Amino acid sequence: MRSIHDLQTPVLLVDAAAFEHNLASMARALPGTRLRPHVKATKCTELARRQAALGHAAFTCATSREIEGMAAAGLGADLLLANEVLDATRLGRLDARVTVAVDSPETIAAAARGGVREVLVDVNVGMPRCGCAPAEAGRLAEQARRAGLQVRGVMGYEGHVMPIQSRAERAEATRVAMEKLLEAHEQVGGEVISAGGTGTFDLNTWATEIQAGSYSLMDAEYEKLGLPFRQALTVLATVISVSEHWAVADAGLKALATDHGNPTIEGARVWFCSDEHVTYAPERRPRPGDRVHVRPAHVDPTIAKHEALHVVEGERVLESWPVDLRGW
Amino acid sequence: MRSIHDLQTPVLLVDAAAFEHNLASMARALPGTRLRPHVKATKCTELARRQAALGHAAFTCATSREIEGMAAAGLGADLLLANEVLDATRLGRLDARVTVAVDSPETIAAAARGGVREVLVDVNVGMPRCGCAPAEAGRLAEQARRAGLQVRGVMGYEGHVMPIQSRAERAEATRVAMEKLLEAHEQVGGEVISAGGTGTFDLNTWATEIQAGSYSLMDAEYEKLGLPFRQALTVLATVISVSEHWAVADAGLKALATDHGNPTIEGARVWFCSDEHVTYAPERRPRPGDRVHVRPAHVDPTIAKHEALHVVEGERVLESWPVDLRGW
Repeated sequence: MRSIHDLQTPVLLVDAAAFEHNLASMARALPGTRLRPHVKATKCTELARRQAALGHAAFTCATSREIEGMAAAGLGADLLLANEVLDATRLGRLDARVTVAVDSPETIAAAARGGVREVLVDVNVGMPRCGCAPAEAGRLAEQARRAGLQVRGVMGYEGHVMPIQSRAERAEATRVAMEKLLEAHEQVGGEVISAGGTGTFDLNTWATEIQAGSYSLMDAEYEKLGLPFRQALTVLATVISVSEHWAVADAGLKALATDHGNPTIEGARVWFCSDEHVTYAPERRPRPGDRVHVRPAHVDPTIAKHEALHVVEGERVLESWPVDLRGW
Repeated sequence: MRSIHDLQTPVLLVDAAAFEHNLASMARALPGTRLRPHVKATKCTELARRQAALGHAAFTCATSREIEGMAAAGLGADLLLANEVLDATRLGRLDARVTVAVDSPETIAAAARGGVREVLVDVNVGMPRCGCAPAEAGRLAEQARRAGLQVRGVMGYEGHVMPIQSRAERAEATRVAMEKLLEAHEQVGGEVISAGGTGTFDLNTWATEIQAGSYSLMDAEYEKLGLPFRQALTVLATVISVSEHWAVADAGLKALATDHGNPTIEGARVWFCSDEHVTYAPERRPRPGDRVHVRPAHVDPTIAKHEALHVVEGERVLESWPVDLRGW
């Protein structure tokens, strides 16, 4: 059995108990295809395999590479690219069931041209990103059907709702967002209403399926919402330099996403990250060679910087999974 | 000849003319081994080969993987790991000249144990990161020599000086920092005084060699200093969704480093980045499928997110170089 001390740093660790707790809790709340796990959060087919083993056979992806990798891993029973593409040729040729989001005549034409057979109409439900206006959804669905595409329904991501800390306010904002999606669905038809995320997994009762992904390893940001999931991801780093008032470990901007703020280290105050360093003020002076667990503020783009996830129980490495869905 | 329109987005483009201007300007200012180009900025042995062809035979690295990759590419004439490591076994076994920074008894012991033969004493010259106090440098050099290591001299990175916009103030802060390094060098001896970066390349007249890397593609941050280098790097993205007041292109947090702020798009105001999206307000409404050039605020960690750099002249792709030094 390998120990975390054998791993070269910086390296991603997944706490096995927290991870299993998260997967089991979600599978109880949203069994089977009520959850369509989002693989963008973790970019790892081995992790997705654990979700599939719990009954979640349909997955959400954000990139063509994620779709291709999931199909190649035999997890292609029902893959949704919850994102617009203008070139769908890589998707149309796969031996998998692939559904693509569309929100314009151009993305409908691209799906048809690329040989994709099924689409969801992507509806803007309040966040300034992709998705058509609810009133346009019916017209786009018609266009898609005329182009020979099967329209499975609608999707709409209430991303602007996720950071709202009060549960009651989050619930109300979800209701308002889903009103727009249901308005669109009335015009579009189809059996799928796909929406939601980790922050609204039990509040969004209108969607037929929830696109949560972060729940498996949990973001620090989501932690504030009091969700029943535990933070499972840390970056293990080695202390490489110790000065009178600070220490430096070997996990920096290239190992940790800082778009949601600096990482945290228990028993220490983090000062700043450089390319390959985190400088921090420890309560107790460490020695060069000591290991520290650095908790990234944002899980998704942190994982995308690494080649592997190591599942650990204390200091024992149980399994190592390649982060095999990186890139585009 | 390939066109940028054949590339899948998001993808890194290097403007050939700006890149060649930058390399030629630097080679005139700091010929041969007066420059020790830092490969961490670009993580690309093909790019390093262009620097070597201009006479820069010695290189600076930040990680063991960078050292290994440079050695494997035949660029191992004189590689400096300008960073502390507690396990040097991967470095000691290479068929290359490898020098490692040390700043503690532990890092000296690690270098000796790992079979590394040459070191520089890393001195803190004012930025709270690695490096010993100047007064400790002589004692560490003695320890290193007793451990059988060749002490080539000192290094000290004046990183805190780089953002100072006034050239006169930057020069004065460099002088103060280098006073500390020279004080240490007096105790340490050796022929090497390694320091500097793109922001002080022509101000640091005390170092025997300058560790600049960003100059080749240039950061937006450095642009403010009025240096004679041009920004050469953009991320090419595809517009995937257009709404009344904003547009969305397919380059987000996983394709662009945002630790120095949001990226910029000419003729547009960038609102925010999500994992795979940049939402922006364009002056002229684009169409889905249009391409946009997104300029990242920080080059180094942006490049580390990509698999290749494509060198372009207008819309023609001249060469594609793997970003082959990623990871650790």
